[in-house]
Amino acid sequence: MTPESSAGGGADVAGLVIGVLGGTGDEGRGLARRLSMAGHRVIIGSRKAERAAAAAAELGGGLLSGAENRDAAAAADVAIVAVPWDGHRDLLVALAEPLSGKIVIDIVNPMGFDSRGAYPLRVPEGSAAEQAAVVLPDSTIVGAFHHVPHGLLLDPAVATIDMDVLVLGDVRAATDLVIALACEIPGMRGIYGGRLRNCGQVEALTANLVSINRRYHAHAGIRITGV
Amino acid sequence: MTPESSAGGGADVAGLVIGVLGGTGDEGRGLARRLSMAGHRVIIGSRKAERAAAAAAELGGGLLSGAENRDAAAAADVAIVAVPWDGHRDLLVALAEPLSGKIVIDIVNPMGFDSRGAYPLRVPEGSAAEQAAVVLPDSTIVGAFHHVPHGLLLDPAVATIDMDVLVLGDVRAATDLVIALACEIPGMRGIYGGRLRNCGQVEALTANLVSINRRYHAHAGIRITGV
Repeated sequence: MTPESSAGGGADVAGLVIGVLGGTGDEGRGLARRLSMAGHRVIIGSRKAERAAAAAAELGGGLLSGAENRDAAAAADVAIVAVPWDGHRDLLVALAEPLSGKIVIDIVNPMGFDSRGAYPLRVPEGSAAEQAAVVLPDSTIVGAFHHVPHGLLLDPAVATIDMDVLVLGDVRAATDLVIALACEIPGMRGIYGGRLRNCGQVEALTANLVSINRRYHAHAGIRITGV
Repeated sequence: MTPESSAGGGADVAGLVIGVLGGTGDEGRGLARRLSMAGHRVIIGSRKAERAAAAAAELGGGLLSGAENRDAAAAADVAIVAVPWDGHRDLLVALAEPLSGKIVIDIVNPMGFDSRGAYPLRVPEGSAAEQAAVVLPDSTIVGAFHHVPHGLLLDPAVATIDMDVLVLGDVRAATDLVIALACEIPGMRGIYGGRLRNCGQVEALTANLVSINRRYHAHAGIRITGV
């Protein structure tokens, strides 16, 4: 299957404005960079507008800007939640109103680290994405982009991101749209990965990729075979 | 990375006798078939010796035989646990003695199905593999082979199984051995996937592969990129 023929790869995402909430971290900036390279206007959100603007300016390109999280959420057609897990719920509670009626892509991996490495944190709602669905009942939640190494997203020498993105959600039009967004990044392919109730293990798998990276000194990602 | 150069791919597994406990199901027979094709003597175990013998005879080849689970466990150098989840604990409790001192490979996915598809079952110990570790304190538990579609393993027209197997465990020599076993199946590659505490999400990911298979009419598997 080529990206173009993937289920949902045909959704029209041209011109969508993307807000990356809590987007000044590595993963948020990495996705902001690649999606702006794909032609989207991208607004990096942060608690402080100046910090967001600095991150956008550092990444460069005319399509990137920075704003306070609330303004980024209000201006976005589609929002990406890239905040650290411990600020996840509070951020979404605060932004429920500007995110109402919108597709919200949750990329957050609730993870802990100790001397033995990474491990998934237990989430009462089942997953970060399901917590978002509880906190944002008037938004449509999609889980995606959990496994993409920011080292690759941010590296100007990396032209293609050769991995698949599992896209999870309960609303077909929303998962189709996010699949199409993923397919805009060269090398990357969005694959429908199941309903939101199956998002917990996808988030948690990031701990395994951390283990793989340590053992093999790699930037590991996944591909789905047979599709 | 080629299979030969993978970490642990160099462990010597030639001549190992494999017991596949609860091995008359599709996944057990599929692995029994491929490992016997790789040159191993494989004993399919079942509650009834005749049923195991019939499964072995049906698969054919001079290296396959059937036995009662206890006899298969006793005769095996390495055991694979392929029983359905609801018989997992009882089987292992009953076989603790013959499995003592051995490497036990747990391939079981605790999964439920309803009208919305597959979903992971909650396991008090965290995962099937961790339950095995609790029940078999004198064995060395390795989680592996969770995602390999039996449709491919059993299909005589399929020469290579082009996917990776995540191998999880807390004892390096044991995970290295299982990685080497996986690498014996043409196309397949064993990859260290983390400690046993990170096995739950790997087992649960099978529910996502079921979702992918339904959406794309596929036999989906995974590859780890960047390794």
